[in-house]
Amino acid sequence: MTAPHWVSGVHHDGSSVYVSNPIPRMGEVVTVTVRVPKDAPVTAVFVRTVPDGEAHFAAMTPTREDAVSVFWEGPLKAHQPRNNYRFKLLTPHGAFHLYQSGLARYDGPDWGDFILAADLQTPEWVHETVFYQIFPDRFANGDPSITPPEGAWDEGGIKVTRRSWDDTPRPWRESGAVEFFGGDLIGIREKLDYLQALGVNALYLTPIFPSYSNHRYNIHDFYSVDPYLGGDQALIDLRNALSARGMYLMLDVTHNHTGDRHPWFIAARQDPNAPTADYYTFHSRPDGYESWLGVKTLPKLNYKSEKLRDQMYAGKDSVLRYWLRPPFNIDGWRLDVANMAGRQGAVQVGHKVGRGMRAAVKEENPTAYLIGEHFFDSTPHLQGNEFDAVMDYQGLNVPIWRWVAGYDGGSWAEGSKDPTLMPTDAFAEQLRRFRAAVPWIIANQQFHQLCSHDTMRFLTICGGSTVKVKLGLALLMTYPGVPCVYYGDEIGLDGGKDPDNRRPMPWDESRWDHDLLAYYKAFIALRRGSPALKTGGFQDLHAEGNTYVFSRQSPDQHVIVIAHRGDGPYKAFQLNVRAAGVADGAALTDLIGGAAHTVVNGYVTLDVDAFSVVVLEVGG
Amino acid sequence: MTAPHWVSGVHHDGSSVYVSNPIPRMGEVVTVTVRVPKDAPVTAVFVRTVPDGEAHFAAMTPTREDAVSVFWEGPLKAHQPRNNYRFKLLTPHGAFHLYQSGLARYDGPDWGDFILAADLQTPEWVHETVFYQIFPDRFANGDPSITPPEGAWDEGGIKVTRRSWDDTPRPWRESGAVEFFGGDLIGIREKLDYLQALGVNALYLTPIFPSYSNHRYNIHDFYSVDPYLGGDQALIDLRNALSARGMYLMLDVTHNHTGDRHPWFIAARQDPNAPTADYYTFHSRPDGYESWLGVKTLPKLNYKSEKLRDQMYAGKDSVLRYWLRPPFNIDGWRLDVANMAGRQGAVQVGHKVGRGMRAAVKEENPTAYLIGEHFFDSTPHLQGNEFDAVMDYQGLNVPIWRWVAGYDGGSWAEGSKDPTLMPTDAFAEQLRRFRAAVPWIIANQQFHQLCSHDTMRFLTICGGSTVKVKLGLALLMTYPGVPCVYYGDEIGLDGGKDPDNRRPMPWDESRWDHDLLAYYKAFIALRRGSPALKTGGFQDLHAEGNTYVFSRQSPDQHVIVIAHRGDGPYKAFQLNVRAAGVADGAALTDLIGGAAHTVVNGYVTLDVDAFSVVVLEVGG
Repeated sequence: MTAPHWVSGVHHDGSSVYVSNPIPRMGEVVTVTVRVPKDAPVTAVFVRTVPDGEAHFAAMTPTREDAVSVFWEGPLKAHQPRNNYRFKLLTPHGAFHLYQSGLARYDGPDWGDFILAADLQTPEWVHETVFYQIFPDRFANGDPSITPPEGAWDEGGIKVTRRSWDDTPRPWRESGAVEFFGGDLIGIREKLDYLQALGVNALYLTPIFPSYSNHRYNIHDFYSVDPYLGGDQALIDLRNALSARGMYLMLDVTHNHTGDRHPWFIAARQDPNAPTADYYTFHSRPDGYESWLGVKTLPKLNYKSEKLRDQMYAGKDSVLRYWLRPPFNIDGWRLDVANMAGRQGAVQVGHKVGRGMRAAVKEENPTAYLIGEHFFDSTPHLQGNEFDAVMDYQGLNVPIWRWVAGYDGGSWAEGSKDPTLMPTDAFAEQLRRFRAAVPWIIANQQFHQLCSHDTMRFLTICGGSTVKVKLGLALLMTYPGVPCVYYGDEIGLDGGKDPDNRRPMPWDESRWDHDLLAYYKAFIALRRGSPALKTGGFQDLHAEGNTYVFSRQSPDQHVIVIAHRGDGPYKAFQLNVRAAGVADGAALTDLIGGAAHTVVNGYVTLDVDAFSVVVLEVGG
Repeated sequence: MTAPHWVSGVHHDGSSVYVSNPIPRMGEVVTVTVRVPKDAPVTAVFVRTVPDGEAHFAAMTPTREDAVSVFWEGPLKAHQPRNNYRFKLLTPHGAFHLYQSGLARYDGPDWGDFILAADLQTPEWVHETVFYQIFPDRFANGDPSITPPEGAWDEGGIKVTRRSWDDTPRPWRESGAVEFFGGDLIGIREKLDYLQALGVNALYLTPIFPSYSNHRYNIHDFYSVDPYLGGDQALIDLRNALSARGMYLMLDVTHNHTGDRHPWFIAARQDPNAPTADYYTFHSRPDGYESWLGVKTLPKLNYKSEKLRDQMYAGKDSVLRYWLRPPFNIDGWRLDVANMAGRQGAVQVGHKVGRGMRAAVKEENPTAYLIGEHFFDSTPHLQGNEFDAVMDYQGLNVPIWRWVAGYDGGSWAEGSKDPTLMPTDAFAEQLRRFRAAVPWIIANQQFHQLCSHDTMRFLTICGGSTVKVKLGLALLMTYPGVPCVYYGDEIGLDGGKDPDNRRPMPWDESRWDHDLLAYYKAFIALRRGSPALKTGGFQDLHAEGNTYVFSRQSPDQHVIVIAHRGDGPYKAFQLNVRAAGVADGAALTDLIGGAAHTVVNGYVTLDVDAFSVVVLEVGG
């Protein structure tokens, strides 16, 4: 069956253009809208939801129309915390079902339905935000006197070394995780002018708690800032400086494991009656215990323990609560290896942990941003009652790598990588499926990046091609979610797998790629100034050959984003914009280049440069 | 992107042909196999699973081949209770991902992955079983003396009436639910010869507990058999008679609500301190309480109450346990409105109830068959830790109605039905998506029917066309799952919506459609004698126009099922059987008609009659 021509113009998403209140209270009845092309043979539309497990159909009404579309409206009650819904469109040729995953003829399982969450406590500020991720030892050295001294300790037989800022990190086998370049929180505070000029307004810092490593993921004290980074006072000073500038702060914690020198573990290992004995899983003491992927220096926390759950999040003085309170007042938490926490073979309490963490965090601050690290399918954690978002590698980051650069970095096993460029339709489908699995509100607050301290630098992934980097960046800034720039990407820092991806930020501006920096600034500014890009809905328009096109629409603005990965220009690209509800005669303005285009017979025709993104704003 | 020709030949399913042990113990490593066409440019295959939330890829090896296929094998560990997995196939043209939902280019969320459940307690006997559903008041009257007397009670102002066996049920507004035809358990026992001759070997009885109605879903005593059906002794006698014939027995219970004359409710309504006060949800006493869809005579049970959970399933003398024990020893439970139980707006404990019921039932009898009524998406309840199956309306029954007869009976709202014949590709896709959402073991024990006491008779749905009924029956008997015949369908009983679909079984054989009965017997016998149809895997082969074709393969047998809904024959249908792994020169024998066909250049060519099913067995 070939789909009829009109189906591409049928649209609904969870944004405020199509849902009268995207974040309703429990019991509230909202109005949902479906846009249907005027020439579609649609005779009736129903919204189907499943209150308490029983399907319910509500008839919709064609309440208004414009030059190209009829808008059908109907009621949807937020009956329960998570309300999945879809639409049924009747035509003389049979029924069509509109899911968040697309329009289809089958009447399938609820997976892929639109999802409206009730009573959702959301971090609204993230829509105004572009994050900047900092690996604290490598961004800026504000106080050379507090860098760990040479030989301060050793880890796995390797002693602490101090490195010069202009050096590059040595491989793990030489450096352990105990070479230090001396970055600290004071240094970060001193660079806030730079960051504001770049346009970012929130920091995501990888861990800053005392740990016997430079990455500080093997934490041995959850209740203080590492003195080598400046201690608690440096964090308070940074916090205050950020607040004065209207900037936000997110910290990073590992709740899946601790370092093996954590007093909890030392006590638990020695004594089955220690107060923390059940924080870990011992098959035998002292050495038979569960650890992260078998790394014995990272003993895994046991969330069957109620005492541990209280300690980490539920209790009144829990780790998560502590830093959300004065004087630190952090704005969010990034949870390391959130995919694995609470999961150990027969014991699978990861969702319970997720729910408990959310409850504690939102009790302290309803607008805190709670995100998990997740390289895989995180969507079961993103139904409204656990995380606000994840570091969404599989939903955007890895697909961008594969579509722009043919880098299959999400597949880690020897020989399993696909080195070819991802087909554009598969790229669009992968993005769509990850969006379709969560409430729209969650999709639009997902944490997105082009790379991180856990991956190769995006410039390196792109083989040093800055045009490819720019293409990726433009996608990052125009796609739904919350963009994050990994420190140094903006000035052209490169680097392979960790620790090479954690080189010190060069502050000698002669080493910067100023053209790239200008592009970063332009797209960050575009993003932060565009209602449609910040909170607008999403519609796929085109995914063929080397060209991917989508529409973003808010009540105030409608933009169309054309991404072209071809190594040559796409001359006279004819794009169907009627499917986006745009009428003939409408003017489309290129928000970067400034050119104007007019819609004729449903199409706009334009030339698109090699490796480029065009952002068109729909005018009257 | 058009898919390459070879993709239709790539296959894996959860059956024992492709999984060395489809029901492994926790921790066991099984071998999984993917069949790949010899001419596919596949250079490597990996099996991806997600132990404790972290993706793991294991390389597979091409261990053997036959004339058309290469078989890649690899290890899969049953690390946790529910193990989802997929395959990644590398080719020079990029990677392909094989999901239970099909082969695709995107690397998506885990929904649609294959699922291997560990330590699953399964009712193996259901694979040898065809069920027969009986509405006890309407099947056979074995003891006229125990029929409820005229005027025995009234319900909603309508008094009990007794009807003659040859009458038809009157509409609800005239009859209430209190007209009785006099069927009983004694009558059922007397008809076991008939049922064995038909070929069925298990009974599913709608409720037999004391209730003030003929359907007995408003139960007022969960611990005895209604005396009007013969009381406990009649059930014991029936049980023993069934056991003597190697036949099975499944009862039906409503755990979502009780009748409003249940002593639990009467006490709870009067007294907030009654022992059963929290079994129900009262907003105010006596009249402000939650009920099933607002029907006040069916007060809804409140599963927040631990005491209720103990009463219904968890406690040692719970309702569910009681009937699984001697002298009743029932073999399974069908749970009425299982979709709604435990769900009330803000309170959503349906899955907790499902898990608790399973634990209790399997503790009593690990091979008991626990199924829920579910007209919608039941798949979240079918992940291995709740129900063994559901009455799978949406996964097979409704699609058959729509594909064979254009009856959109799954859509209940005024004006929302699609009266057109469902496109065959949409039919196949709907079936595939419901299969894809659950472990294969569950898909292959789903409870399937063509109609029930809750729907119109299938013959009526088919507008009286017995050729359409035969087509539907053949699909029912050849599709994965456990078929159930609704009493009387086999002899051509018709009837509209309830109560018209609950007419008494006519025992005057002159009123029977003997040709249809013979067809039922033939397909039931085919089913029960065919290893491939009982436990074989499943592969879609063709879904175009009016013709749907699939393959079922067990270690002992391979059959191909061709279903054709066209009102004319399909002459010289060319079917690609190489995609099913069948080699040129193989002989395909029609198991009904007896004709033989030979595979030439990957295809078999045959004529298919209007409204017919052909079952081909693959020979050497």
